[in-house]
Amino acid sequence: MKVASGSGDKARFFTQGRWWLKALPVKFKAKMVGMARNIKKLAQEDPRRVFHSLKVGLALTLVSTVLYYPYPVYIYFGFDTVWAVMTVVLVFEFSVGATLGRGLNRVIATLLAGGLGIGAHYLAKLFGRIGEPIILVFLVFLQAAISTFLRFFPKIKARYDYGMLIFNMTFSMITVSGFREDQILDIAQKRLSTIIIGAAACVIVSIVVFPVWAGEDLHNLIALNIEKLGNSLEGFGDEYFKRTGGEESKDDKKFLEGYKSVLNSKNSEESLANFAAWEPGHGRFLFRHPWKLYQKVGTLTRECAYRIEALNGCLNADIQPSSEVGSIIQEACTNTSLESGKALKELALAIKIMVPPSSADSHIENAKSAAKNIKSLLKSGIWEDIDLLKVIPGVTVASLLIDVVTCTEKIAESIYELASKAQFKSVEPTLSPKKLHSGQNQSIKKLVNGPDVGINVRELTLPSPPSENSSTSKASKQRMGV
Amino acid sequence: MKVASGSGDKARFFTQGRWWLKALPVKFKAKMVGMARNIKKLAQEDPRRVFHSLKVGLALTLVSTVLYYPYPVYIYFGFDTVWAVMTVVLVFEFSVGATLGRGLNRVIATLLAGGLGIGAHYLAKLFGRIGEPIILVFLVFLQAAISTFLRFFPKIKARYDYGMLIFNMTFSMITVSGFREDQILDIAQKRLSTIIIGAAACVIVSIVVFPVWAGEDLHNLIALNIEKLGNSLEGFGDEYFKRTGGEESKDDKKFLEGYKSVLNSKNSEESLANFAAWEPGHGRFLFRHPWKLYQKVGTLTRECAYRIEALNGCLNADIQPSSEVGSIIQEACTNTSLESGKALKELALAIKIMVPPSSADSHIENAKSAAKNIKSLLKSGIWEDIDLLKVIPGVTVASLLIDVVTCTEKIAESIYELASKAQFKSVEPTLSPKKLHSGQNQSIKKLVNGPDVGINVRELTLPSPPSENSSTSKASKQRMGV
Repeated sequence: MKVASGSGDKARFFTQGRWWLKALPVKFKAKMVGMARNIKKLAQEDPRRVFHSLKVGLALTLVSTVLYYPYPVYIYFGFDTVWAVMTVVLVFEFSVGATLGRGLNRVIATLLAGGLGIGAHYLAKLFGRIGEPIILVFLVFLQAAISTFLRFFPKIKARYDYGMLIFNMTFSMITVSGFREDQILDIAQKRLSTIIIGAAACVIVSIVVFPVWAGEDLHNLIALNIEKLGNSLEGFGDEYFKRTGGEESKDDKKFLEGYKSVLNSKNSEESLANFAAWEPGHGRFLFRHPWKLYQKVGTLTRECAYRIEALNGCLNADIQPSSEVGSIIQEACTNTSLESGKALKELALAIKIMVPPSSADSHIENAKSAAKNIKSLLKSGIWEDIDLLKVIPGVTVASLLIDVVTCTEKIAESIYELASKAQFKSVEPTLSPKKLHSGQNQSIKKLVNGPDVGINVRELTLPSPPSENSSTSKASKQRMGV
Repeated sequence: MKVASGSGDKARFFTQGRWWLKALPVKFKAKMVGMARNIKKLAQEDPRRVFHSLKVGLALTLVSTVLYYPYPVYIYFGFDTVWAVMTVVLVFEFSVGATLGRGLNRVIATLLAGGLGIGAHYLAKLFGRIGEPIILVFLVFLQAAISTFLRFFPKIKARYDYGMLIFNMTFSMITVSGFREDQILDIAQKRLSTIIIGAAACVIVSIVVFPVWAGEDLHNLIALNIEKLGNSLEGFGDEYFKRTGGEESKDDKKFLEGYKSVLNSKNSEESLANFAAWEPGHGRFLFRHPWKLYQKVGTLTRECAYRIEALNGCLNADIQPSSEVGSIIQEACTNTSLESGKALKELALAIKIMVPPSSADSHIENAKSAAKNIKSLLKSGIWEDIDLLKVIPGVTVASLLIDVVTCTEKIAESIYELASKAQFKSVEPTLSPKKLHSGQNQSIKKLVNGPDVGINVRELTLPSPPSENSSTSKASKQRMGV
């Protein structure tokens, strides 16, 4: 019995082994195909990744061609040429701002640490042959502990983290190596030159060849995030009441989930803003563009995204409002979400084309009056005969939508602030504020073209369009004064 | 007029200048005091920061004492000793996992790149004196572009980013420097040894001296986040209805905002999980502890935090429910938030002390029955005479709380999964499942001690305590089977 099972095991083992061997080329091929697909996907998602990779190769090639191959240059710098190669690899980052920040950090930290290291070297000499190594080791310990601790300061971490690291490294190396070498000044000077050459190569290649500006990325990210919220909101009302009506719409629901990436965008916004602060003026952005304000807009956008997450929770909840309830609040709710969605999309557009976001004002007013409609509907006596439990899901959605309108207003205010600080140009700046507003609206609509035609048509079907002269232009006049 | 104003300006300038000079020492002192306070705060927030700084100093001191000062060692390694110092500064990270990850990345990447670099060097030799530099430069370009692109793969970025960087650096340096030097094998071997010595010093110091384990940090962070949500929820009900009643309670509201840090904790959880994967077994955690599952618990915790953010929005909303409405739903809502808060705190505790979270089951059941109470209250006829608009804020809160209960259940399920995969030990594992559950509950309560006595007393005053034999133990039985 035991033997039989043993030989059976053996046979099974060999059969499985043969299968496995046969399957190997197939598996390998599948793996390769999968990898190729991944590479293609990564490259297509953002072709700048390919350019970045080629740029790093280019900078390295440049530095090694210039420093290694002309014989006199190599003789002069000797072994220190490796520092140029190292600098290129460690300093070249995806965006100009990050590269510039790291390059400056590296050069300045090397300079400072070099100076202090040489000072430490001379200081230690005063303590004689026995005292010297003790003093040097003590200084290295002290410096390493202090510069490591400083890296925990949030402000230093954000902008000078790499500098502190390089300071620590250079000081330790110079102090300790100084113990043996006499030509310490010569070494320090050569190392600094090669590092400057490496850093300069990185900065020049990153600015000249297909530059990637962190500032522009931040600008686009903020606009895109607001647009994503807009898309989700625009679609929400329809989708919600479709489901309430029992319809299933499996297709094309992806845009509803677009807001999800906004929930966790804080870190990327923060680092982009830090990198952008290093960048010189470029394209539409002047030096000292108010990048910090983008973070404020981003924070408010995220707060709005949390509300939309709660709305999405309602979309997937077990309890849905009865069709009776649905039919009552449907129009007002759909309008509120549609109009705040449109407002957000106009706000996103205003950021994109860098004009004051007054074109969103009318949608915000529409959203507010739709929210008012919801409130008055809820006030009315229609509900007396309906079980409150059936009303709850609908009321929750309604109240979250009212909340979303408030968020949208706050986002609009922060963008007005951004527009004023960053001097976003109005389209017709010679007109009086009031004329400017309506004129600008039209010009922007021309710019937007396609999508906004649909919006205009829909506007006509809205329940209570606000009069153009009252609140909208009041709001915009008030804001023009900022 | 002009002259007068000119001399006035001058006088003002000098007065201001004198003021400024006089104020300088005061300002300097204020700045110094501010900085000292910041340093103290940073150190008190997490004293491990101070230890970490001292540890970096220690590792550097060790390496330089061992490599630079004994004359024969220095003669053998020569200039390559700098690589040990560099390695220490670049590899030593806050946690053991991060240090180990960087150290292994550095050593393995150096080994691979060294081997390939030497291969490239010999390959290029075949192309003769003119072809050699061309081939070498081409290989450097190709390698740099490929290894830079690979860093965009999310999986590689998470665990091997530093390795790719070092691979790129080492390959370029060896390939290019190989053009001039003949003793390339000797250099490669010395450099690898010094890097291994540096990395080993980091890893040993980080493990031996006050180790900081990323895994433990992740474990504690997840527990702390859940506890924060629990605290916010426990306090929410009281605070909300106090405000509805017109009372203001400015003091001690901080715990209500505790959940806010949870909203943006995704990145830290992700990096801690990545670091933890490098760590060997330590303390209560075995090697291959299911760190990825913590991220799942974290994601569900964040989803719950989004709901609490919406609840907090209700707390600060302009419209508050009338006291009439408040008095009706107050008890059920307060109970729901209190019980789900307690459940979350029990779950956090279960993670902390690493036992299956069955002690939370009763609170979850209580929360569910309180949520049922809310629903039946809303179903009842009490509302017929009340204006629906006044009911909305209360209903929104009620429905968000019902949502929170669902989230809490999901978190509990994910912790049950974690407990089973990570083999969290029950307190009395020899009992039968049913006995185990009640027995365990008691033992855990003994462990918890203080806070849970209060919970037990309060349980008795709840409107509809679930019978211990029915749903609670059914749920726990079901889970024991997993």
